[in-house]
Amino acid sequence: MTLRFALLGAGRIGQVHANAIATNPDATLVAVADADPQAAKVLIAIHGGEVRNMAAIAAADDIDAVLICTPTNTHADLIETFARAGKAIFCEKPIDLEVGRVGACLKVVRDTGAHLMVGFNRRFDPEFIAVRQAITAGKIGTVEMMHITSRDPGPPPGDYIKTSGGIFKDMTIHDFDMARFLLGEEIECVSARASVLVDPVFGDLGDYDSASVILTTASGKHCSISNSRRAAYGYDQRIEVHGSLGLISAQNQREVSVEIATAQGYLRPPLHDFFMTRYVAAYAAEIAAFIASLSDRTIAVPGGEDGLRALQIAEAAQKSVRTGQVEGV
Amino acid sequence: MTLRFALLGAGRIGQVHANAIATNPDATLVAVADADPQAAKVLIAIHGGEVRNMAAIAAADDIDAVLICTPTNTHADLIETFARAGKAIFCEKPIDLEVGRVGACLKVVRDTGAHLMVGFNRRFDPEFIAVRQAITAGKIGTVEMMHITSRDPGPPPGDYIKTSGGIFKDMTIHDFDMARFLLGEEIECVSARASVLVDPVFGDLGDYDSASVILTTASGKHCSISNSRRAAYGYDQRIEVHGSLGLISAQNQREVSVEIATAQGYLRPPLHDFFMTRYVAAYAAEIAAFIASLSDRTIAVPGGEDGLRALQIAEAAQKSVRTGQVEGV
Amino acid sequence: MTLRFALLGAGRIGQVHANAIATNPDATLVAVADADPQAAKVLIAIHGGEVRNMAAIAAADDIDAVLICTPTNTHADLIETFARAGKAIFCEKPIDLEVGRVGACLKVVRDTGAHLMVGFNRRFDPEFIAVRQAITAGKIGTVEMMHITSRDPGPPPGDYIKTSGGIFKDMTIHDFDMARFLLGEEIECVSARASVLVDPVFGDLGDYDSASVILTTASGKHCSISNSRRAAYGYDQRIEVHGSLGLISAQNQREVSVEIATAQGYLRPPLHDFFMTRYVAAYAAEIAAFIASLSDRTIAVPGGEDGLRALQIAEAAQKSVRTGQVEGV
Amino acid sequence: MTLRFALLGAGRIGQVHANAIATNPDATLVAVADADPQAAKVLIAIHGGEVRNMAAIAAADDIDAVLICTPTNTHADLIETFARAGKAIFCEKPIDLEVGRVGACLKVVRDTGAHLMVGFNRRFDPEFIAVRQAITAGKIGTVEMMHITSRDPGPPPGDYIKTSGGIFKDMTIHDFDMARFLLGEEIECVSARASVLVDPVFGDLGDYDSASVILTTASGKHCSISNSRRAAYGYDQRIEVHGSLGLISAQNQREVSVEIATAQGYLRPPLHDFFMTRYVAAYAAEIAAFIASLSDRTIAVPGGEDGLRALQIAEAAQKSVRTGQVEGV
Repeated sequence: MTLRFALLGAGRIGQVHANAIATNPDATLVAVADADPQAAKVLIAIHGGEVRNMAAIAAADDIDAVLICTPTNTHADLIETFARAGKAIFCEKPIDLEVGRVGACLKVVRDTGAHLMVGFNRRFDPEFIAVRQAITAGKIGTVEMMHITSRDPGPPPGDYIKTSGGIFKDMTIHDFDMARFLLGEEIECVSARASVLVDPVFGDLGDYDSASVILTTASGKHCSISNSRRAAYGYDQRIEVHGSLGLISAQNQREVSVEIATAQGYLRPPLHDFFMTRYVAAYAAEIAAFIASLSDRTIAVPGGEDGLRALQIAEAAQKSVRTGQVEGV
Repeated sequence: MTLRFALLGAGRIGQVHANAIATNPDATLVAVADADPQAAKVLIAIHGGEVRNMAAIAAADDIDAVLICTPTNTHADLIETFARAGKAIFCEKPIDLEVGRVGACLKVVRDTGAHLMVGFNRRFDPEFIAVRQAITAGKIGTVEMMHITSRDPGPPPGDYIKTSGGIFKDMTIHDFDMARFLLGEEIECVSARASVLVDPVFGDLGDYDSASVILTTASGKHCSISNSRRAAYGYDQRIEVHGSLGLISAQNQREVSVEIATAQGYLRPPLHDFFMTRYVAAYAAEIAAFIASLSDRTIAVPGGEDGLRALQIAEAAQKSVRTGQVEGV
Repeated sequence: MTLRFALLGAGRIGQVHANAIATNPDATLVAVADADPQAAKVLIAIHGGEVRNMAAIAAADDIDAVLICTPTNTHADLIETFARAGKAIFCEKPIDLEVGRVGACLKVVRDTGAHLMVGFNRRFDPEFIAVRQAITAGKIGTVEMMHITSRDPGPPPGDYIKTSGGIFKDMTIHDFDMARFLLGEEIECVSARASVLVDPVFGDLGDYDSASVILTTASGKHCSISNSRRAAYGYDQRIEVHGSLGLISAQNQREVSVEIATAQGYLRPPLHDFFMTRYVAAYAAEIAAFIASLSDRTIAVPGGEDGLRALQIAEAAQKSVRTGQVEGV
Repeated sequence: MTLRFALLGAGRIGQVHANAIATNPDATLVAVADADPQAAKVLIAIHGGEVRNMAAIAAADDIDAVLICTPTNTHADLIETFARAGKAIFCEKPIDLEVGRVGACLKVVRDTGAHLMVGFNRRFDPEFIAVRQAITAGKIGTVEMMHITSRDPGPPPGDYIKTSGGIFKDMTIHDFDMARFLLGEEIECVSARASVLVDPVFGDLGDYDSASVILTTASGKHCSISNSRRAAYGYDQRIEVHGSLGLISAQNQREVSVEIATAQGYLRPPLHDFFMTRYVAAYAAEIAAFIASLSDRTIAVPGGEDGLRALQIAEAAQKSVRTGQVEGV
């Protein structure tokens, strides 16, 4: 049975998901909604479907699932609306920037029995999946410590920063989820330090552009994280996990990897210029997993609780920076 | 305007191209022909279109172009048939195993003014394109020498070997085309040595499984090639080009590149297990280039002459092994 | 003028330095002292010189400089003795495990005007020197963040742990010095977390075997450090420094780097099995630098203050683990 | 017992070997001879010993062995002189540029029972030794094909070229020996092509600066070799050996391997600038092996026959370039 989708939000990430739907044999794009009707029109011209408003989509009986790709501050309301409308829901992270609001939203999800998946795309990256499989297969023994390097090529615009929720809720939140994904144990405590080193605008907006974090679990495992809003050489996304028997690491990816050797040395190209190209395979696999979970009637992972846990860690990190103390999650 | 395609041959490579057509917004798959109607049916169930026979496709006015993915010994006849029928033609390599037959076929192509592209897929690989662009941009100065390593993961079945034309026309022919693509000068002479080291069946069939070749151009540039029908670690496809200012190299690709470090050492996964996965991007780009050449009414490259030249080099290589001499092309 | 040395302590590291003296054209080994006279005899049989006791060496007028390679708890006393005796002093790290004792010792050094160098061997590693030179040359712009990975191949014996001063004073202290060496700014605050993950004996002795640390400077630069007493794949010593224009990294070294590719994948050898082989070049360069500083009458670097600063950071790290707070240095 | 050496020839390579003798506990440098007495004096000022002439060294009873590091055209005569004088002999490659002269010289060596080792330094490189050990240990199964890349950083001066014997006897000869060292089977045939691509001076002197060679053995194994007198990125020395179970490769070495990532990409330093730095460990191990063979009264390897075989392959390569034919060795 082909699953019928509505896309809510026709921006950058909405376009990525529309493409995933269009090329998935088990799914079809029926409707697109966007506050800007022109954006919705452009998208349906490429991928098909028709423009509808939110209410029409909620009421429609030719739609099985929605993909929420609208601005963050609309996510929780939309999840509640479509959960009550009986639609399956894929929602881009985060559900909301406030832990309390997320909790209330997830109660509606539970009460309605809605099928909800949260868009932590990196869990679907082939490299990171291979890391997890190797861990599960016991290749490195018992996991003890890990280190995540996550550095954006450059800072986002000021308008984005203002509504982003800050570096921990916007950027590090992916790393918090990845730590949970790979450590195999919940995060118990957070120590975080943050600075403004890249652009004073972050400080002006009460945010940071550089952060170092140590997460610990009840059994004493560590995950350290290094974040920056700037990496001149491209989108730096590395993970290494140390266990009792060894180390597994996922290195950076490039568009092409040719190497030129001259009198100046051996030069390889910079990395991907951002997540849209780095995580192409992950985005496609993510939507495929959502579709598969619907078809198979299995629980969608990562789900609402995963979104909530990562947000709680982010709040603890924010607090740790303020207090200078280790904070519990 | 959307280009309407017929696919001739619904085997492994035909399926790859059908997928490229199906996901290309400027193309549509109208018809599929195969000696085995069941194979054609399976393919249209996935990618659309209808099953037709060759004659119907040649006569159809709803078809602009054909993709010839049938057995090699049918290529030249089909090119002539569809050239006369006024269809644009993409033909998998080789056009034929005999230089004389290729020449006759290309005469028909010229006489009919047919639009013909030959499937040397590696010219469309992003890595090798980057190599060529760097050369063209002068990054390594004047090209002087190059080395191609091309090793299959394992030998093909005996039935395949029998009709393959031998290692030089079946396998090294890709490397001969790559040498022409990157040296920027025609091959003038060939020295070749070949052995049976992998499986005696090659010798029983009058073929070889291991070959080393030196190509030279009029100005004295060299390209050495190393081929084997076996590489336990996967599909080994490397190119390096040396110039007056330096070296550019394209290294191997993998599905995933995670590295596991244990007491035994640092282990990365084997390479792609064959061309179908290694050259995914190349196959898609190849068909896209064919479509673009049709849309833009530009000459398709690589064309029939490129197919002919590579075959001539292969014949010279075969002769060089027999005579122990450098042979002219 | 050839400088005349006495070696105090004929153990493992004493032998390394004796070899450096023996092969340095500007130095000669005159005397060796060790609590175990047999050990001293073995060493002079290889490298020359004669066995003397400490008092004789202090009184000798044929000795210009001493190398203190005795157990840690003797370092401060020996520095004071030989400073008063007018000898130049190279002392293995640390000067002492107590900040107060180090301060008192350095007062004697200042009062006597003694020439003192402290053995932070990694400052002389060619890789790390190249990192520093690239930073100084502006290759990565303004330094912002760095990450040090330092993992021993396996835990030391229990007897060693007891007198080691704990992981921060014994192991991380090298990383603290490296952070000061490369950040170009003093460490202001420390956040540290530590666990017992490798062997319960560490916990039994009040120590840890796994640690994660974040150092920050007054201007907000970060250095994160990841330590473990176990790395199945060898002695893991990596540094990366991020700046406004890019990243510079020093990767691990191996005895040999041949790679074997089989059906299991691509395998490179494990790393060096410990510091004695990993830092061969650094140890030789360290003693050469000490000799050069004596010949040129320049200040020896790293000196006593460098030893003191690293120790102060280690104490702050110990305190941070206890308090769960960021601690000032 | 300490072996007493005389060094014949105080040039660049003589200095390297003098240093190896000086730092070897089982050897001492007693005498140095050079046509330029000043060069000899400079060397003994650093490494000890006294200046003597050839006749005095041959007659001396305080000298056990000589190291012949004089110009090539003196090698065969000196070997004969010192073989008759009963000295053990280490001779830099080649013994002579003419196969006939080498044969006559080796007859004297046989007749006198002299202990002779020839300086193919690369056999003692730790990387290449590791390659051989892996092969011997069966890691890659039966050896089938190999490829050697050997490219000098830049051309030698014209005066050197004139007396070098040409690219095959001067440069490729090392690769011929390495092929014999690793293939485990004698070379039977040679196909060679050569060009002047780097500097016309090579052509003016009847020589080449670029060469590609295919060696084959009786059982059909191949070794291809790629040589150039220019590599802008440094001294390019790579070997890969393919077997029935996989591939083993030795990659290039660098002084330091730090990597700098900026907006331009990831840059590693160029390679060693020539053999004097690249093969430091090999030169030391070579002399140590010579000393060990003397101490243990074992046969020195590589010996005179190894020098002869490599020269015969070089002559066959020269002939193959002239005739355009495969030539037997």
